[in-house]
Amino acid sequence: MSKGRLEAFSDGVLAILITIMVLDLRIPRGASDLAALQIVWSPFLAYVLSFLYIGIYWNNHHHLLQASRSVNGKILWANLYLLFWLSLIPAVTGWMGQEPFRLWPSAIYGVVLFMSGVAYSILQASLVKHHGKDSPLQRAMGADAKGKLSIALYALAIALAFVNPKIPYVLYFAVALIWLIPDSRIERGLEGGNSGIA
Amino acid sequence: MSKGRLEAFSDGVLAILITIMVLDLRIPRGASDLAALQIVWSPFLAYVLSFLYIGIYWNNHHHLLQASRSVNGKILWANLYLLFWLSLIPAVTGWMGQEPFRLWPSAIYGVVLFMSGVAYSILQASLVKHHGKDSPLQRAMGADAKGKLSIALYALAIALAFVNPKIPYVLYFAVALIWLIPDSRIERGLEGGNSGIA
Amino acid sequence: MSKGRLEAFSDGVLAILITIMVLDLRIPRGASDLAALQIVWSPFLAYVLSFLYIGIYWNNHHHLLQASRSVNGKILWANLYLLFWLSLIPAVTGWMGQEPFRLWPSAIYGVVLFMSGVAYSILQASLVKHHGKDSPLQRAMGADAKGKLSIALYALAIALAFVNPKIPYVLYFAVALIWLIPDSRIERGLEGGNSGIA
Amino acid sequence: MSKGRLEAFSDGVLAILITIMVLDLRIPRGASDLAALQIVWSPFLAYVLSFLYIGIYWNNHHHLLQASRSVNGKILWANLYLLFWLSLIPAVTGWMGQEPFRLWPSAIYGVVLFMSGVAYSILQASLVKHHGKDSPLQRAMGADAKGKLSIALYALAIALAFVNPKIPYVLYFAVALIWLIPDSRIERGLEGGNSGIA
Repeated sequence: MSKGRLEAFSDGVLAILITIMVLDLRIPRGASDLAALQIVWSPFLAYVLSFLYIGIYWNNHHHLLQASRSVNGKILWANLYLLFWLSLIPAVTGWMGQEPFRLWPSAIYGVVLFMSGVAYSILQASLVKHHGKDSPLQRAMGADAKGKLSIALYALAIALAFVNPKIPYVLYFAVALIWLIPDSRIERGLEGGNSGIA
Repeated sequence: MSKGRLEAFSDGVLAILITIMVLDLRIPRGASDLAALQIVWSPFLAYVLSFLYIGIYWNNHHHLLQASRSVNGKILWANLYLLFWLSLIPAVTGWMGQEPFRLWPSAIYGVVLFMSGVAYSILQASLVKHHGKDSPLQRAMGADAKGKLSIALYALAIALAFVNPKIPYVLYFAVALIWLIPDSRIERGLEGGNSGIA
Repeated sequence: MSKGRLEAFSDGVLAILITIMVLDLRIPRGASDLAALQIVWSPFLAYVLSFLYIGIYWNNHHHLLQASRSVNGKILWANLYLLFWLSLIPAVTGWMGQEPFRLWPSAIYGVVLFMSGVAYSILQASLVKHHGKDSPLQRAMGADAKGKLSIALYALAIALAFVNPKIPYVLYFAVALIWLIPDSRIERGLEGGNSGIA
Repeated sequence: MSKGRLEAFSDGVLAILITIMVLDLRIPRGASDLAALQIVWSPFLAYVLSFLYIGIYWNNHHHLLQASRSVNGKILWANLYLLFWLSLIPAVTGWMGQEPFRLWPSAIYGVVLFMSGVAYSILQASLVKHHGKDSPLQRAMGADAKGKLSIALYALAIALAFVNPKIPYVLYFAVALIWLIPDSRIERGLEGGNSGIA
């Protein structure tokens, strides 16, 4: 089965998710001075964080599929499962934005990131299985230390939210920074192995 | 006529439908403890159900078009007719979410699923007709027992909503589970018949 | 210049326009009986009408571009000008939906249809000019009687809104019906002329 | 790395941005005469301006990528950085629309245009660097006088907003007019240099 429509549908969903979050950056009617911007500092901070995450997921998804030749039924569902968790990001972003530095909003935001991370691992594993153990994809993935570290840090962030709800913010931005560097593993793996794929 | 734009437009509409439903998962301003999540349990349940259905339609639509070589004017309109009914899903999801376990919201939700199922059958039939009786598509479709069963179960759910409005919920999730298994009919049909298409 | 991205961008905009209109079909909180559906009859009628129109534009746009080989800078802007007028459809649909059978909402809806029709003619003319007078596209277009008739009927509908605001509704649905038949002109023109294009 | 998905994702985001702004053109319930349109003149003016800008960005992005052969990780992030600033346009459009001719809304609108212009320059520079100094892309870009002029005029508009908040409106429309002429530099550069690319 060709991977084209899976990419197109995922691009569509991710493009909408990254865009509709901006609907939360509304300034109340009648506020026209600089102080009006202070009203939206917290939704804006949450927006930046979530924009980064959806950008990262799009980027990694792009790399992952670029290194894949084809997909099967299981992969379609693994992909939808990932999109389900990512689709909750606007909802938890809105909550975190309107209730800054509170326990539950920042913890639940972490739960959605954690589940998204797990879903991405499942998608990755089903693609590797489909392409075989000796595929360039498998070589490129390696031990996936970055993915595992991120999931562990989300769990840590959820736990530390009960100590101080500001700590998760630091951890969420830290994990985003780890990923801002594009996934050079696949590019390297492909160059070393089968340069004809990407 | 090439099928590329029909796929692209349908992917766009389905991606938006599956995503804008998340706008109903808003937590009221000022609610920042765990109890706030209880406010959205019902919209969330409706969201999960509708996400599953739109995911299933995307999946089946993907399989159906993958097995098709070209389209004609009638097929474009049959596809738009399907998209019309699917486009009502966010509206009935919102209603069912805000009025949990009430007669009319759960019955009308079933009406939209029923009409969507019928529209999908029409699209499928017009594609089969366009490709001919001996096409791999026709062989792959077979008697379409799953499609007919689903439509019957939606009708049953609407009727039983008048007995107890919780019954339709069970039936809607049951039908979704039937479809979660990817449509292996087409894959098998193509392998047995003309392996050069999908 | 290749036409691929013009098609992709237009598909995206049309897919979003046809979908966000459903956000107007909200049933107020607390209304859970059949009477609640009566609240939305007028927005629903307006939704059906506008869904038809955007579906028709997508369909005709598809046919028009299918018969085109390439585009230039002028065509990109003619296309954006068409998308601008179509993008106003959700706004006037919302207004007509909440103020049924009133003079200005139904007249202004006609103004947007009229301007969209003119914009489509401009796009069509710039594509014909780009492809040359003897192109299959030009042969396929012919005198474009349907397009000219529609524009005239929109103007008539606007004028008759001042007599009775219900008349435009009849005319808008009548024009939609004229177009529901897919644009067989291009298909025929291509078959007769250069069968290698579509 | 192929440029296809970067184009598709950008098309998706730009299509959504250009479309969701129309959600601000709502006429309040109960207003059905011509005076109701006066309520939305200011949001409509802001909508037209922002529609022009996003149309211009889509157009230039199209030309830029058309002249490019491939992308790398840095380019993906430069593109996301551009999309981030463009994604703020609906928010500042909404603000400028509801507070017409006020200092801060019109200045902050300029800040978003300024940052978008800078981000576009960065994307352009990273594409030129990736394709090499003697590439048709580099020849086509030339000194990019139009891009530099626009950024300077946005800065001027922000400064002059403190003198009179109506001045920025004039400058924003003036810059849009400069760009309405499609980017003939690339088309010429490609024709003169390597005609096999676009």
